[in-house]
Amino acid sequence: VGEVTSPALIHFAELLGLAVFAISGALAAGRKQLDWLGMVVIATVTAIGGGTVRDLLLDRHPVAWIAHPDYLWVALAAAFFTLAYVRFRQPPSRALLIADALGLALFTLSGAQIAEQAGAHGIIVVVMGTITGVVGGVLRDVLTGEIPLILRDQDIYATAAIAGAALYLLLQRLGLDRDMAALAGMSIVAALRLAAIFWHLKMPVFSYQDKQR
Amino acid sequence: VGEVTSPALIHFAELLGLAVFAISGALAAGRKQLDWLGMVVIATVTAIGGGTVRDLLLDRHPVAWIAHPDYLWVALAAAFFTLAYVRFRQPPSRALLIADALGLALFTLSGAQIAEQAGAHGIIVVVMGTITGVVGGVLRDVLTGEIPLILRDQDIYATAAIAGAALYLLLQRLGLDRDMAALAGMSIVAALRLAAIFWHLKMPVFSYQDKQR
Amino acid sequence: VGEVTSPALIHFAELLGLAVFAISGALAAGRKQLDWLGMVVIATVTAIGGGTVRDLLLDRHPVAWIAHPDYLWVALAAAFFTLAYVRFRQPPSRALLIADALGLALFTLSGAQIAEQAGAHGIIVVVMGTITGVVGGVLRDVLTGEIPLILRDQDIYATAAIAGAALYLLLQRLGLDRDMAALAGMSIVAALRLAAIFWHLKMPVFSYQDKQR
Repeated sequence: VGEVTSPALIHFAELLGLAVFAISGALAAGRKQLDWLGMVVIATVTAIGGGTVRDLLLDRHPVAWIAHPDYLWVALAAAFFTLAYVRFRQPPSRALLIADALGLALFTLSGAQIAEQAGAHGIIVVVMGTITGVVGGVLRDVLTGEIPLILRDQDIYATAAIAGAALYLLLQRLGLDRDMAALAGMSIVAALRLAAIFWHLKMPVFSYQDKQR
Repeated sequence: VGEVTSPALIHFAELLGLAVFAISGALAAGRKQLDWLGMVVIATVTAIGGGTVRDLLLDRHPVAWIAHPDYLWVALAAAFFTLAYVRFRQPPSRALLIADALGLALFTLSGAQIAEQAGAHGIIVVVMGTITGVVGGVLRDVLTGEIPLILRDQDIYATAAIAGAALYLLLQRLGLDRDMAALAGMSIVAALRLAAIFWHLKMPVFSYQDKQR
Repeated sequence: VGEVTSPALIHFAELLGLAVFAISGALAAGRKQLDWLGMVVIATVTAIGGGTVRDLLLDRHPVAWIAHPDYLWVALAAAFFTLAYVRFRQPPSRALLIADALGLALFTLSGAQIAEQAGAHGIIVVVMGTITGVVGGVLRDVLTGEIPLILRDQDIYATAAIAGAALYLLLQRLGLDRDMAALAGMSIVAALRLAAIFWHLKMPVFSYQDKQR
């Protein structure tokens, strides 16, 4: 109850996603000159935030990291690794963005599958996948006083998550088996995100003239 | 279980409230030059945020928009309508403020009734009504990097919600029937809010000299 | 179910902690020139935020202040007391910081005990104690548009909470009885925090050169 039985490979992939998001949180904290504990907090919240909000909304208890405290240890280890690494070397930003794209892909599809298992409607499955993928980064940005990146950067981020989760549902309805559909969904998330990074694919900005201001 | 059986008219009114709050979120996003997906996210969060926090606090599952995915479709439709509208015309700010006042009135009283049905104490009923009415706007402001409007604008906003929910409880204790009390509560929320808009009724500012700074 | 049976003295101590945190929220609101209702909202959220997030994460329902509405009355009374007080006198900042340290100590250990009773793992007990102690202040800072104090001030704050909750667990494993261990945990939280205030004990800042910016 409250747990997802996933093959060892998927579990490993999830822990990898956690580590990558924790590192991105730690680096964001470093830019804000936080103390090292603040850095650890931001790293952990970035890594577990999306899954936590998903579990609260779906009433899945115990929440993932309460059921599996090793999630916290992975996030902590990644944060301390970052702390040590940046003393000696410049963080490789491209490598991180690529890893982050993989983390987004893994989290989005695992979130979608969890919502699907809970019997949610199609649109809810897409929303839960997206929440799992992006909320950690939103909390990271709110806590460090930034407008959330996914709202402002015009780099395909939440869009990639939405597209991947929607494709996952579509392919299943077309008769593809669940694992293949998930793999296809993950690929499209990662591919869209990498295209945004390398070819500067952007979303159009929405704005308007507001004479009343 | 977890659902409120409300007459068709009330359900329609709730959907109207959702649409109005989604539009206000979309317009706030436009002021921040977000991309159109960010705009859709802010619009949706503004529309469903209050009810979601209420449901989590009261342990009502499934959460309203998970049980009724049409809530999400209404919010999305309102966001895209706004996106299209502002390409051609200036948004009518007065019309929006009036609609927003009606949305606040509807959400506050529906939230209060839901808490009442869950057997909550009087003060909790008032707090849940107010949370349902105002939290969507608070999340909209936090996500777009603003100090929440209800905390700073001195326009009677949360005050109107609190007054309406309190009147609803009071009238029932005086013997009025539930529907009439709810109607009276909604009227006072809308009336106070409209008075704030048209006659610039304001709340006193709380501040003090802080020599230590 | 959902309630903690605590001796009258502990309950009194919790209410004292609520009052102190409500006052710190009210004073933060005053610095931002919020209206008096905004001030009351910030004061209340600061006082009950930590316990609320803990209860949602642990699936403890009804949430503390829904089960015990007197928690809200205490927070409201403390907020209005502050409103009245600062009209006549400068708030004594040292006295407040000392009281806040005691509040942090009380909330951290009560949160840790609640997680322990719910059968959580050791690291989860420490995390829940820390969340109970610090989340109210984090919400206060996010709502007033600040980067949360615990992330940036380098004053031992969350560190004190973590140390106290960890000591509580350690001493129990060494055979100390539960109440004595809790008392020792509270003492170390308060002592570390007071040392930070009076001797300007600080945490090292984590930052790095980011040539990509």
